[in-house]
Amino acid sequence: MLTSKELKRFKKLHQKKHRILEQLFIAEGVKVVEEFIVEGFKPINVFADHTYEGKVSTSVYRVGSKQMEQLSAFKKSPGLLAVFEMPIKKKLNFNGWTVALDSINDPGNLGTIIRTCDWFGIDQILCSSDTVDCYNPKVVQASMGSLARVNCYYGDLGLELKSSGQVVYAADVKGEYYHEVEWPVSGILLMGSESHGISPSLKNTIHRFVHIPKSQNSRAESLNVGVSASILLSALQK
Amino acid sequence: MLTSKELKRFKKLHQKKHRILEQLFIAEGVKVVEEFIVEGFKPINVFADHTYEGKVSTSVYRVGSKQMEQLSAFKKSPGLLAVFEMPIKKKLNFNGWTVALDSINDPGNLGTIIRTCDWFGIDQILCSSDTVDCYNPKVVQASMGSLARVNCYYGDLGLELKSSGQVVYAADVKGEYYHEVEWPVSGILLMGSESHGISPSLKNTIHRFVHIPKSQNSRAESLNVGVSASILLSALQK
Repeated sequence: MLTSKELKRFKKLHQKKHRILEQLFIAEGVKVVEEFIVEGFKPINVFADHTYEGKVSTSVYRVGSKQMEQLSAFKKSPGLLAVFEMPIKKKLNFNGWTVALDSINDPGNLGTIIRTCDWFGIDQILCSSDTVDCYNPKVVQASMGSLARVNCYYGDLGLELKSSGQVVYAADVKGEYYHEVEWPVSGILLMGSESHGISPSLKNTIHRFVHIPKSQNSRAESLNVGVSASILLSALQK
Repeated sequence: MLTSKELKRFKKLHQKKHRILEQLFIAEGVKVVEEFIVEGFKPINVFADHTYEGKVSTSVYRVGSKQMEQLSAFKKSPGLLAVFEMPIKKKLNFNGWTVALDSINDPGNLGTIIRTCDWFGIDQILCSSDTVDCYNPKVVQASMGSLARVNCYYGDLGLELKSSGQVVYAADVKGEYYHEVEWPVSGILLMGSESHGISPSLKNTIHRFVHIPKSQNSRAESLNVGVSASILLSALQK
């Protein structure tokens, strides 16, 4: 049974400060929950409502639809929800490519970038401390379980970029045409926010600028940051 | 002043059936509203709350925060909201590339695809009738105004693909490596849903399959459909 005290406790995990305090986070939906379990994450509780038909490799507690609604961070709960322990913070490792994110606020964008990194074999993302928390339920959802494999490291972006010893590529309109860049086997791809671009304080950490030009007749103003990152990652993996 | 009758009427535009009935839709935020106005869309009403400071090129009605909250489709309203007339349905035109979408349900994904198409100069998207409505407020938002320039045509996808006279490329794991495809100057890129792929009934409309392979050591299951479409569009624009 889920007591009202537990319900209250787990509901608080929708907020970053409580996730940090408890070192716990929530994942929802069979596919996402299963990915975390397969990758060795430890669920401390798994809850399911009557819509769930038993496809996850762990035992579940049955809860009522009302309780599930309260636990879920979504308007429409997927019917299965797990509370996981956060993994131990991993150290950075600059063997291959790294994505660095400067002030990315939208959870869907971060989730998408995590998922794309996972697809292209990039296992770490360096996030500025004001980038949305990777354990935000919407990030967890959009990453479709890839968060279980990609290390999101939060810290002082300027310091980390400088001490990495890597060539830093940043997306910028004044950059080189991305299809003509000779991408090395390792490096850092730095993406800024859609509305503010890359922070002025980071400008002196950048070695090269790259650009995805729009079509000649296009009146569009910009690309989504998750899309830009994905297009550049697809190009450097060639 | 906004009467309670009007408030009720405009709130209903969050639902597809009322949008179709009234031939009206809602756009929110200065940037998005301004794009529609610039592209010649006719706002029948523009509402702003106290947070708005007058950056849009049309006259606005002031409303209270509570009324704005009710009008807005978002948890946090951007403070400016316009009700636009839907444009007259445009005919399809297969001069350049077209994107075709089969059962894309997520509004964020459709919005992102519209925005990416706009960036790469693709001005029409062929949508299966069960693809999410392009005037859904979340699609309008994610398209960042690009919906003002990209024609989303809903119809019988199978019939339209067959009668287009175009070569149809579909994203599929068994397809050709997308970087090695010799993309023609015009064609159709068909994308299926992430969970169900392309409908069996469309299989006989496809001429070629293309694929974005994952990294050798990747355990990721799939890419986001907006990301896949964007990567393929970036490749065929080279």
